[in-house]
Amino acid sequence: MIRFECDYAEGAHPKILQKMMETNLEQTPGYGVDVYCESARKKIKELCGNDELDVHFLVGGTQANMTVISSILRPHQGVISANTGHINVHETGAIEATGHKVLTVASADGKITAKQVKEVYEGHWNDVTHEHMVQPGMVYISHPTENGTTYTKPELEALSKVCKECRLPLFMDGARLGYGLKAHGNDLTILDIAALTDIFYIGGTKVGALFGEAVVITNEDLKKDFRYLIKQRGGMLAKGRLLGIQFDVLFNDGLYFELSEHAVNMAMIIKNAFREKGYEFLYDSYTNQQFPIIPDDKLEILSQKYSYSFWEKADERNTAVRFCTSWATREDDVKSLVSDIASL
Amino acid sequence: MIRFECDYAEGAHPKILQKMMETNLEQTPGYGVDVYCESARKKIKELCGNDELDVHFLVGGTQANMTVISSILRPHQGVISANTGHINVHETGAIEATGHKVLTVASADGKITAKQVKEVYEGHWNDVTHEHMVQPGMVYISHPTENGTTYTKPELEALSKVCKECRLPLFMDGARLGYGLKAHGNDLTILDIAALTDIFYIGGTKVGALFGEAVVITNEDLKKDFRYLIKQRGGMLAKGRLLGIQFDVLFNDGLYFELSEHAVNMAMIIKNAFREKGYEFLYDSYTNQQFPIIPDDKLEILSQKYSYSFWEKADERNTAVRFCTSWATREDDVKSLVSDIASL
Amino acid sequence: MIRFECDYAEGAHPKILQKMMETNLEQTPGYGVDVYCESARKKIKELCGNDELDVHFLVGGTQANMTVISSILRPHQGVISANTGHINVHETGAIEATGHKVLTVASADGKITAKQVKEVYEGHWNDVTHEHMVQPGMVYISHPTENGTTYTKPELEALSKVCKECRLPLFMDGARLGYGLKAHGNDLTILDIAALTDIFYIGGTKVGALFGEAVVITNEDLKKDFRYLIKQRGGMLAKGRLLGIQFDVLFNDGLYFELSEHAVNMAMIIKNAFREKGYEFLYDSYTNQQFPIIPDDKLEILSQKYSYSFWEKADERNTAVRFCTSWATREDDVKSLVSDIASL
Amino acid sequence: MIRFECDYAEGAHPKILQKMMETNLEQTPGYGVDVYCESARKKIKELCGNDELDVHFLVGGTQANMTVISSILRPHQGVISANTGHINVHETGAIEATGHKVLTVASADGKITAKQVKEVYEGHWNDVTHEHMVQPGMVYISHPTENGTTYTKPELEALSKVCKECRLPLFMDGARLGYGLKAHGNDLTILDIAALTDIFYIGGTKVGALFGEAVVITNEDLKKDFRYLIKQRGGMLAKGRLLGIQFDVLFNDGLYFELSEHAVNMAMIIKNAFREKGYEFLYDSYTNQQFPIIPDDKLEILSQKYSYSFWEKADERNTAVRFCTSWATREDDVKSLVSDIASL
Repeated sequence: MIRFECDYAEGAHPKILQKMMETNLEQTPGYGVDVYCESARKKIKELCGNDELDVHFLVGGTQANMTVISSILRPHQGVISANTGHINVHETGAIEATGHKVLTVASADGKITAKQVKEVYEGHWNDVTHEHMVQPGMVYISHPTENGTTYTKPELEALSKVCKECRLPLFMDGARLGYGLKAHGNDLTILDIAALTDIFYIGGTKVGALFGEAVVITNEDLKKDFRYLIKQRGGMLAKGRLLGIQFDVLFNDGLYFELSEHAVNMAMIIKNAFREKGYEFLYDSYTNQQFPIIPDDKLEILSQKYSYSFWEKADERNTAVRFCTSWATREDDVKSLVSDIASL
Repeated sequence: MIRFECDYAEGAHPKILQKMMETNLEQTPGYGVDVYCESARKKIKELCGNDELDVHFLVGGTQANMTVISSILRPHQGVISANTGHINVHETGAIEATGHKVLTVASADGKITAKQVKEVYEGHWNDVTHEHMVQPGMVYISHPTENGTTYTKPELEALSKVCKECRLPLFMDGARLGYGLKAHGNDLTILDIAALTDIFYIGGTKVGALFGEAVVITNEDLKKDFRYLIKQRGGMLAKGRLLGIQFDVLFNDGLYFELSEHAVNMAMIIKNAFREKGYEFLYDSYTNQQFPIIPDDKLEILSQKYSYSFWEKADERNTAVRFCTSWATREDDVKSLVSDIASL
Repeated sequence: MIRFECDYAEGAHPKILQKMMETNLEQTPGYGVDVYCESARKKIKELCGNDELDVHFLVGGTQANMTVISSILRPHQGVISANTGHINVHETGAIEATGHKVLTVASADGKITAKQVKEVYEGHWNDVTHEHMVQPGMVYISHPTENGTTYTKPELEALSKVCKECRLPLFMDGARLGYGLKAHGNDLTILDIAALTDIFYIGGTKVGALFGEAVVITNEDLKKDFRYLIKQRGGMLAKGRLLGIQFDVLFNDGLYFELSEHAVNMAMIIKNAFREKGYEFLYDSYTNQQFPIIPDDKLEILSQKYSYSFWEKADERNTAVRFCTSWATREDDVKSLVSDIASL
Repeated sequence: MIRFECDYAEGAHPKILQKMMETNLEQTPGYGVDVYCESARKKIKELCGNDELDVHFLVGGTQANMTVISSILRPHQGVISANTGHINVHETGAIEATGHKVLTVASADGKITAKQVKEVYEGHWNDVTHEHMVQPGMVYISHPTENGTTYTKPELEALSKVCKECRLPLFMDGARLGYGLKAHGNDLTILDIAALTDIFYIGGTKVGALFGEAVVITNEDLKKDFRYLIKQRGGMLAKGRLLGIQFDVLFNDGLYFELSEHAVNMAMIIKNAFREKGYEFLYDSYTNQQFPIIPDDKLEILSQKYSYSFWEKADERNTAVRFCTSWATREDDVKSLVSDIASL
């Protein structure tokens, strides 16, 4: 079975394991204040063009989301998110478990617009009973989204502008950030993201690391006591250097971007194969996740050799599924898939 | 200004204040174990035809909802509710503040169906990633709903059946229960409700009391330690007898039902007046809340003399509003309103 | 049985019920924005000598404590309290249920000192692992304490000074505030309290009202969105005027202080009776709660006619108990008790 | 600088890294259902002599503690713990953040007794106001404790018996379990622990792994839906196999015990060196943590070459400190330290 069902099926890029081996018996202080974390922080700050950023390393995405969101909101506030947002559907209520409502806005592709944020904000404050409702307190977006779609620079600028006007911190979940930055047609740089969001994270788990998300805080007001929150939510790794080493290697000589580019290229080849076959796509993605709509009898054939994720029934005879590539996807596997698609 | 904007504009039925006066200097133990609470409990048990019920008196609706829901769910569970449910929109995230997600289902009239509950339940358990999603743990309905609509007996029976099959406790918010029981065309008795739900409450605040909701627990499994939860959520009134006295008076000689009937009758007169004028209604309510859609220029005229609640814009020239009656609504005020409607 | 077991055995001062009767059928807006609440707010602001205060009316003490504390702290912060503090022992973990630890300091009499606060604060920040510990975020005191003791003006000034230095908001639970202000030997005025604390409340439940606590916010930073928090925690009374009316009456012509003085005078008579009998006291209280240590055989005699609260066994043959007076205590009952004490 | 300040200064045992390397590019399903997790589970079940156990792998100790505790307690319940317990002092209020109070009992050495548990339990239920207090809902112990002390088999049997009588699940934090099992004089086996506790965990982070704790659930009632809780609290690692591989290696041919024994042997040598020097110990530990009380001038000398943790001032001229060994401690470093101690 060749796996295309997710982007975390393998371990880590060999350079990361290599570095872990080399440094294994060094003695370092715990909890993320070692030299490897420092080095990784320095590289990330340079990459973001801002030395005043705070950078923290957390183990995973749900942990990062709940730690960030609960560190920002007051008890009566909620977080605006697309209804399809990961925090709304796939984190077992982790946000609610910290006491906060996810305020959803409808989204067809996983993205939300500046206009929607404005409407939620004004809808709240214009309602005479607003004290009886959860107050919008921040905005959550994912980039790329859970559907593989990405924000353009003008879209993110518009969101950022509205958020500033409404005093709503803008938080970007970048669990697959690299795949967004290397998406075909993308016009957003990490410099833009650092400038336009208040807090975001650079996903490692799905982009070459064993695990790990680098949370970057750009808004001065959100920095205070963040390490307490990491500890309280269970995210302070004793051997913090494991996270430092991984991001240090990933941001050495652009490895992170190289790996991201590879995954996107592999995905584009697959996308093309499905397109040439005349299949439609559930979402128009240029990142590592592709959502072709496939006749059920053809899917049956593919499933004998390849794994993928079921997404939804498109109609009685067709199914939308997800094929994922990653930094680790082998070109031979893609070639094999493409050939099998062609002969469906 | 004659107020029809809500059903809590006045104090309490005079008999309640009278009884408070008479008993004012009696010394009783605190926290709801006095003779008045006991007497009220006895009457409610009789009314529900079940001596094994637990009855607790709480101060208000949001308090009752959050105390009940957080007493039942485990941390990873959520409560199924109509998207229009009070817990979802008008309690400032009180449920989420106790750690739980409200799992909404779409509703045009405020009600949810057995089919919807089944779908949410099966949708959850059939999803291979269900452990990444909030598990449905109970069902919340309001009767009458926030839109004045009511469940029929077959509808409640169907809900009850599905809930039992799915092991989801069924909780009825009865903040306006009396107005539902006396709704024109209603076929549900309080005996039915006690038999078909696992826990419900009898609203006092909006039906003749100064304040107070009587929570009735019919499901043995939900009874344990409920008083701890009341205390923890801030709902254990030191002078608990104030609640006991009120419900004792309300359930003396059927006062509660008499007051409810009055409000509904007043509402039906108003409904009729709007209908005769040819106005449509946003919801088809036979309870104390009426939602006529009124041309803006006509509404302007009414608003000089009467208060009501804005509900939503129906279109550019018409607005849906809410007129509420209550146990305290004066016949003369209704006559005056009807006459003014007729001459719009 | 004559009850001295608590200070909430009766209803309310008759003037309060009278006013409720008179205003019963008036129509007012809900949720605390009616004319009675406004009038009561105005009187409290005048009393505190500060027109910029925010005043909110809540139903009970536990509700007030949890609403106030959870509105102030960030998730990683806790509240410093005496180990005997009501929030630490008698609120079923209401504070923890909002996510916060109670950071206790040892107290023999229920009070805490400026020195203790300083020690906790410095102990935290001097510990190199402080990020692994709950950060002190505010200070809770009760006045009078659960043991009937009171802070002197110099003590409160010292606490206030340390709190300001450490940027820890100082919160005073005044569930029995009137009895403290009228304590024999007391040198603290309500003006002092308004000047020296950041937030406090004036207890109504135990001092003449049916129920109700008036939360006074003096610190500008703590005012924002407080009504949302009241609603979320279940404390926003639909018929808010019930609270307004009560405090309006209590602060009319000094009724609150008159009632408080009566209770304290009654308590001093009882204290004196026990003292003359040669009994010791568990706490040296000059407020409405008295804690005599009584030989078990003598207590047996008293218990046939009077109720009191068990506090703790002093030794094998003696028991410390609590006798409470209140605004409603009848002089005849006190005389009877005194006479029976004398003849023990 | 030679580090003895903690037991997480190095990476992992080389065999673990080796296995990660070898399996790095294998594709496995995520979230802990891969073959490595299955294999590790099987070994742990065998070790515990019970095939019906549930075994889950979490990333760290605080995460394990808060996930376990919040999965067991109802909202009004708290967890009994020594005042020195890790959950009470060094987890930034993680337990309170899930809504629960830590009910502390005094402990001189970090252990609690069956008698203490019984007293807390009976103290609660005998108090007439118990509904106003947090209900004891489970018991937390650590073995070895934060002070390096360990429970004897009779002590654990007594605790287990009382817990069963009081229906309080017994939870053992085994972050350093290996070092307890290999403590000199220890009479407890992992079979005993699996039989006597309801849930416990086998610490990996401090005993040879990069990170990871294996939670073992022996009580059938506590198993339900545990994976939801792991996900909600942020502990479900996408690449779950990383945890499986580590524990699979650790429980291959007894590596875990071998590593534990090494650390304890190293600690005993250090203990002996201090003892021969005539120094006292703050706690009488036979595990990998040693707490000698050292004259400040001598400590000054040691600190030029060795790191350790400050524990507390013993008196004006002496300080209690902690020296930790681990699976990674080098014999040469210990020899050097012993020699330097001898010549102090």
